[in-house]
Amino acid sequence: MNRRSFTTTALSALAGSALPLRFRQPGLRVDGARINAHLTALSAFGKNPQGGVSRVAYTEFDRQAREAVMGWMRTAGLDVSIDPAANLVGRRTGSDPSLKPIVLGSHIDSVPMGGNYDGQVGSMSAIEVAQTLAAAGRILRHPLEVLIFENEEGGTIGSHAITDGLPAGELDRVSQSGKTFREGIRFLGGDPDRLDSARRARGDIAAYLELHIEQGGRLDQAGIPIGVVLGIVGIRHWEVTIEGFANHAGTTPMKGRRDALLVAARCIEAVNRIVTSVPGRQVGTVGIIRVEPGAYNVIPGRAVFGLELRELDDAKTLGFYRRIRAECERLARAGGCSIAFQETLASVPALTDPKIRRIIADAARNLGFASMELPSGAGHDAQEMARIGPVGMIFIPSKDGISHSPREYSKPADIENGANVLLLSLLTLDAR
Amino acid sequence: MNRRSFTTTALSALAGSALPLRFRQPGLRVDGARINAHLTALSAFGKNPQGGVSRVAYTEFDRQAREAVMGWMRTAGLDVSIDPAANLVGRRTGSDPSLKPIVLGSHIDSVPMGGNYDGQVGSMSAIEVAQTLAAAGRILRHPLEVLIFENEEGGTIGSHAITDGLPAGELDRVSQSGKTFREGIRFLGGDPDRLDSARRARGDIAAYLELHIEQGGRLDQAGIPIGVVLGIVGIRHWEVTIEGFANHAGTTPMKGRRDALLVAARCIEAVNRIVTSVPGRQVGTVGIIRVEPGAYNVIPGRAVFGLELRELDDAKTLGFYRRIRAECERLARAGGCSIAFQETLASVPALTDPKIRRIIADAARNLGFASMELPSGAGHDAQEMARIGPVGMIFIPSKDGISHSPREYSKPADIENGANVLLLSLLTLDAR
Repeated sequence: MNRRSFTTTALSALAGSALPLRFRQPGLRVDGARINAHLTALSAFGKNPQGGVSRVAYTEFDRQAREAVMGWMRTAGLDVSIDPAANLVGRRTGSDPSLKPIVLGSHIDSVPMGGNYDGQVGSMSAIEVAQTLAAAGRILRHPLEVLIFENEEGGTIGSHAITDGLPAGELDRVSQSGKTFREGIRFLGGDPDRLDSARRARGDIAAYLELHIEQGGRLDQAGIPIGVVLGIVGIRHWEVTIEGFANHAGTTPMKGRRDALLVAARCIEAVNRIVTSVPGRQVGTVGIIRVEPGAYNVIPGRAVFGLELRELDDAKTLGFYRRIRAECERLARAGGCSIAFQETLASVPALTDPKIRRIIADAARNLGFASMELPSGAGHDAQEMARIGPVGMIFIPSKDGISHSPREYSKPADIENGANVLLLSLLTLDAR
Repeated sequence: MNRRSFTTTALSALAGSALPLRFRQPGLRVDGARINAHLTALSAFGKNPQGGVSRVAYTEFDRQAREAVMGWMRTAGLDVSIDPAANLVGRRTGSDPSLKPIVLGSHIDSVPMGGNYDGQVGSMSAIEVAQTLAAAGRILRHPLEVLIFENEEGGTIGSHAITDGLPAGELDRVSQSGKTFREGIRFLGGDPDRLDSARRARGDIAAYLELHIEQGGRLDQAGIPIGVVLGIVGIRHWEVTIEGFANHAGTTPMKGRRDALLVAARCIEAVNRIVTSVPGRQVGTVGIIRVEPGAYNVIPGRAVFGLELRELDDAKTLGFYRRIRAECERLARAGGCSIAFQETLASVPALTDPKIRRIIADAARNLGFASMELPSGAGHDAQEMARIGPVGMIFIPSKDGISHSPREYSKPADIENGANVLLLSLLTLDAR
């Protein structure tokens, strides 16, 4: 998918960084045991024999898990509906009808052979925050919304439908579930013919907050329980196709071969060499490759690989891309092959709102937690929501930085702490 | 498959190189038009829209083509049967009951998207030689056999079954047709439960002759119509598995990644570098690779590629292998990965019989054709037959050296000339 989001500008309605004393509410805390019990209950839907879940969007496991989640949302005092894009929407009215909602959200779908924390921690914590407020009889000034987005792992589909819309052509692509996106959205109770009515415009939300596991190892290594996310890196994908000439591997001398895989191998090495040639947090990955015809005894006539670059500064990304492309073109020429780069994803970086960053850091401090600022190397629904309003993201540690794996793990105490930072940040935002 | 064949020793029953005058038979020639008409008729079975054929062994196209071929064999005066390994066997009795048969053979199965000449030229020419002899009322001293081997492209399965047997475990592997080898052999009319009765011992044949397209470009470049094959190179395959650690491509810093594909890329480059580091005809190819999990946004945790080495001197092959393995192990360690080499094919070189080489060269000369000696870079049924008797191979030019492709082409005149060399070589062998 080609996507271009713009960077969130400052949220003018928010000001200052010091937390007013009246919001240091030692009494209002989430129920950590309840969040973790919900996470355990959720883990039953699509459980892998090896641990973790395979709860791919639009599958029966996904549908069943959403049913359970809607029950918990209702128990948390939210009015629950499914929007045309099949996102789960939980609402509670605020005391000031002139205000736009503050939205808490995340997702519950997983990658195949995924873990029990990615998306799920933020989803259960958002519901828990609503339940804590309801149990305390606390009505916010702003409307409160909890959004459980559909199909985050397949490309932030649900949040993209809200902020930018889904082109009709994309709806007919086949998703990882085997269903088309159109079929999947309908399967989950959405209405793909009315997607436009799910869209929201810039200014339709007061703010968006998301709690998520880091998925990297920085917090875990530093022993810091709360991360304040600077932004979500831009992600660009290119499908790189190298055309050589398939021929018999036994009868074709080494000299004069036009071996597409050999050129691809040199290109993959070049990607790594160029991305690591300067200091920084940029990452470049070749995670997928296929060759044709693909046999021991045939020189590959074609190799296709996927190049991904991620970086918080898109200009830097494009600089790396230009260097990689020039070097790969040189390598292809030297190997008697042609090469073509096809851009397949262009998600530009989404910065979080500086004022919300300060609110999160203050909330952490007031609760007694150390925090650090860091970028998000992974994509999130927050990057989509940044198109329509100011966003903030809270990270909690991922053990050993492992994610998208049954071995993904975050401690129950870290989850509870993150949910309390989410609650306190929400209260601070609401008061402004 | 692990296979070890031994080198053919001299055929003591044959002696001398000068062609006795009585076998310079200007009158006995094949019907080139008939061979080429048979080739055209054969090309209908599994024809690709782009030209050439996809007549993969054990498919319906293969079965139908064999039915047609059996008809042509009968017309050529051969007694036709299907042996338990599903090879087509055509026999004609000789005048001396004490002699073992001289065998002419090749195959008619193709690779997917293959051409109209590989195997097919030799098969149609062998049948044509039998028909020419029958039409002339010429009875050989030796019994004559035409063997159309099943599934040459899947690993010289039919000829291997005759010479070395097929282990029961291998019969249950799935062939390129989707059927197991056991199912495929039964589908073609063989009896996989009686394979042992298809086997022949050393000494069971007087000689084996095969005409084949070169598949390389040496004859075409040199403008020489007949190649006298020195031997069939040994082919060794290893499945190389690199284990790293799959992790999120966005959240895992470049430093400390254990990227199995990056290591594989460096290994593929090393294979090429080492194989081309010394002069010679050796070839080394990586023609197939797969990575797991295989997504743009996941660092590959595993990469598996196929390494193939071919060379007429097996000690040289093993020397290259040791250097490649040591270098790849070094690269894997440097990349935080483990690496394992699993040998999946060890077909040692099969030299042709020096006396038969001379007979072929003399036959070419007597027919007025220039010839040159050259190795076969491709594997052939002849390499299997070399286990049980002296073999000779005749090559004709492949246009531009292209093979295993719809663009494979050999001129009708070259095919006819090759078949005449096959006929005259057979007559010379028979007379000794």
